[in-house]
Amino acid sequence: MAKTNQKYLLAKRPDGVPDRDTFDLVEEPVPDPGPGEVLVRTLYLSVDPYMRGRMDAGESYAEPWAVGDPMEGSVVGEVVETNGADLEPGDIVTGDLEWAEYATASATDLQEVDPSHGPVSTALGVLGMPGRTAYFGVREVLEPGPEDTIVLTGAAGAVGSVAGQIASLSGARVVGFAGSDEKVAFLEDELGFDAAINYKTTDGYAAALDEAAPDGVDAYFDNVGGEITDAVFTRLNLDASVAVCGQISLYNAQEVPTGPRKLPQLIGVRGTVEGFLVWDFQARFAEATATLAEWVQSGDIEYRETVTEGIENAPDAFLGLFEGENIGKQLVKVGERRE
Amino acid sequence: MAKTNQKYLLAKRPDGVPDRDTFDLVEEPVPDPGPGEVLVRTLYLSVDPYMRGRMDAGESYAEPWAVGDPMEGSVVGEVVETNGADLEPGDIVTGDLEWAEYATASATDLQEVDPSHGPVSTALGVLGMPGRTAYFGVREVLEPGPEDTIVLTGAAGAVGSVAGQIASLSGARVVGFAGSDEKVAFLEDELGFDAAINYKTTDGYAAALDEAAPDGVDAYFDNVGGEITDAVFTRLNLDASVAVCGQISLYNAQEVPTGPRKLPQLIGVRGTVEGFLVWDFQARFAEATATLAEWVQSGDIEYRETVTEGIENAPDAFLGLFEGENIGKQLVKVGERRE
Repeated sequence: MAKTNQKYLLAKRPDGVPDRDTFDLVEEPVPDPGPGEVLVRTLYLSVDPYMRGRMDAGESYAEPWAVGDPMEGSVVGEVVETNGADLEPGDIVTGDLEWAEYATASATDLQEVDPSHGPVSTALGVLGMPGRTAYFGVREVLEPGPEDTIVLTGAAGAVGSVAGQIASLSGARVVGFAGSDEKVAFLEDELGFDAAINYKTTDGYAAALDEAAPDGVDAYFDNVGGEITDAVFTRLNLDASVAVCGQISLYNAQEVPTGPRKLPQLIGVRGTVEGFLVWDFQARFAEATATLAEWVQSGDIEYRETVTEGIENAPDAFLGLFEGENIGKQLVKVGERRE
Repeated sequence: MAKTNQKYLLAKRPDGVPDRDTFDLVEEPVPDPGPGEVLVRTLYLSVDPYMRGRMDAGESYAEPWAVGDPMEGSVVGEVVETNGADLEPGDIVTGDLEWAEYATASATDLQEVDPSHGPVSTALGVLGMPGRTAYFGVREVLEPGPEDTIVLTGAAGAVGSVAGQIASLSGARVVGFAGSDEKVAFLEDELGFDAAINYKTTDGYAAALDEAAPDGVDAYFDNVGGEITDAVFTRLNLDASVAVCGQISLYNAQEVPTGPRKLPQLIGVRGTVEGFLVWDFQARFAEATATLAEWVQSGDIEYRETVTEGIENAPDAFLGLFEGENIGKQLVKVGERRE
């Protein structure tokens, strides 16, 4: 009897906030790799806020999923079988694969993971796309200097927690917004943020900023958008830079979100607002991964992972992102590494 | 009997749209220049949208006027009398002076105007602050290339009309929004814009853009803000640049204006939005003026002026800016040049 493979399909397009009915878990036989392909057994699956955009028809920078098609995401896994590909069983690889226990892929669409860099799960977090997003967002888009104050939203998340620490390395004052006292303590006590604000309990974002960033805001790394961003914009200093990395607070909106117009404020401070995607820096991914690995090994950068067990719980892990349930990178552990 | 001098004071802070009661015309004796000062007889007075911000207490990049104090603005005038200053009677000068028939100023706060460059009024328009704003906004902030489409709002105004022509010189497709059929004809037939849209009569900004800018928008020079800007943002191409020069549609707002949130759109297109002020380019003003003068003399840049006669009508000229009554630079003619 063929071994079975559990995988998730997009059951329907969500109307606003997705729920478990958005996802459909099916069982199929484990697929055979075609010529030049490998069969990968999933160890960890990444769930990321940007995936919410792929659930809608159009309107996102990532290609929409078709209803009934498999969900896809970054995976780190172990090569089980190859069919004429330049990889060996047991090799650890990463790539965009299905939300599944097993998936086939062309070897050219996979990157080998060097397990000496750290636990293989880090290929999806601090040494993967979130870490690289933090790296290029801070060092190429914002470039905070030692006299600058940088503010980050989603500061305890996979990207924000690394971005804040990278900014700290250049001497900037680092202020993070996060959604629980536990996260605030994590940022201040473990990651060395200069200040962190629990946006769920603070009396007012602007007043909290005045205390945490008394000299104003020179650089803003925005993962969240919405009302916190409104407050930060009123505190921008001359020549301030804003990197728009994500806007998770708006992704489930059912109508076009509205808010205070921000363009007038930009004139006086000569502010620059820049949307960026990590894929624009693809030519420099190796540099970023190597530098991040060094920082992790030296202890300059610490990281946290929130691990949900079992492919069947992947939807909960994804939905939890919008509730802020994760600290650091949210992963789904799908299988054990064999060797 | 001393000659009298009519001048305008700020009578009160406007609540929303200013009206004639915002201004107070008074008569005083013509002042005597102090040591190092000159007495200037005003020929032309400039009224500019940014002055609306100076009528409010704080909240603007330009210093607020005090209630009861003289209004100030760019003036071109003739030196009448000097008191130990390095200028001669009859010299033409420009500087920030009072809204008055006569004003004194330190010679060091005045710039000489070279009348060989063109009519002296151009020192307040195409060869003055509006022309330089257009010059740096297009050439330093937006840098449109020959394959690009640039869209401008306030396109028939002092800044927009020059900015569009400068963009044309680099080969870009130039599309302007303006507020009358006369302005549209001026842009298309006299200035050589590729297309112009009468925003007051068009059925929809986005649909009009799709026709006028069928390949999308690579560069956006925004003088107006509000709903036209909302539409332009939905048509931004990959790596689009937005220069926020003015937001005249919002200056009279009595509450913080709201609108669709724009930050999410910037991620997908990796757009950059930059507020700028011409004063940041002060070190290069001579270069800009010389280049603009060449273009005017060669016919590469054409300009239009709307002239209101008489200091007493300066408030109407100013208020008309918000009704879009001017084509090109709005001036107030206060006196005749004597020689």
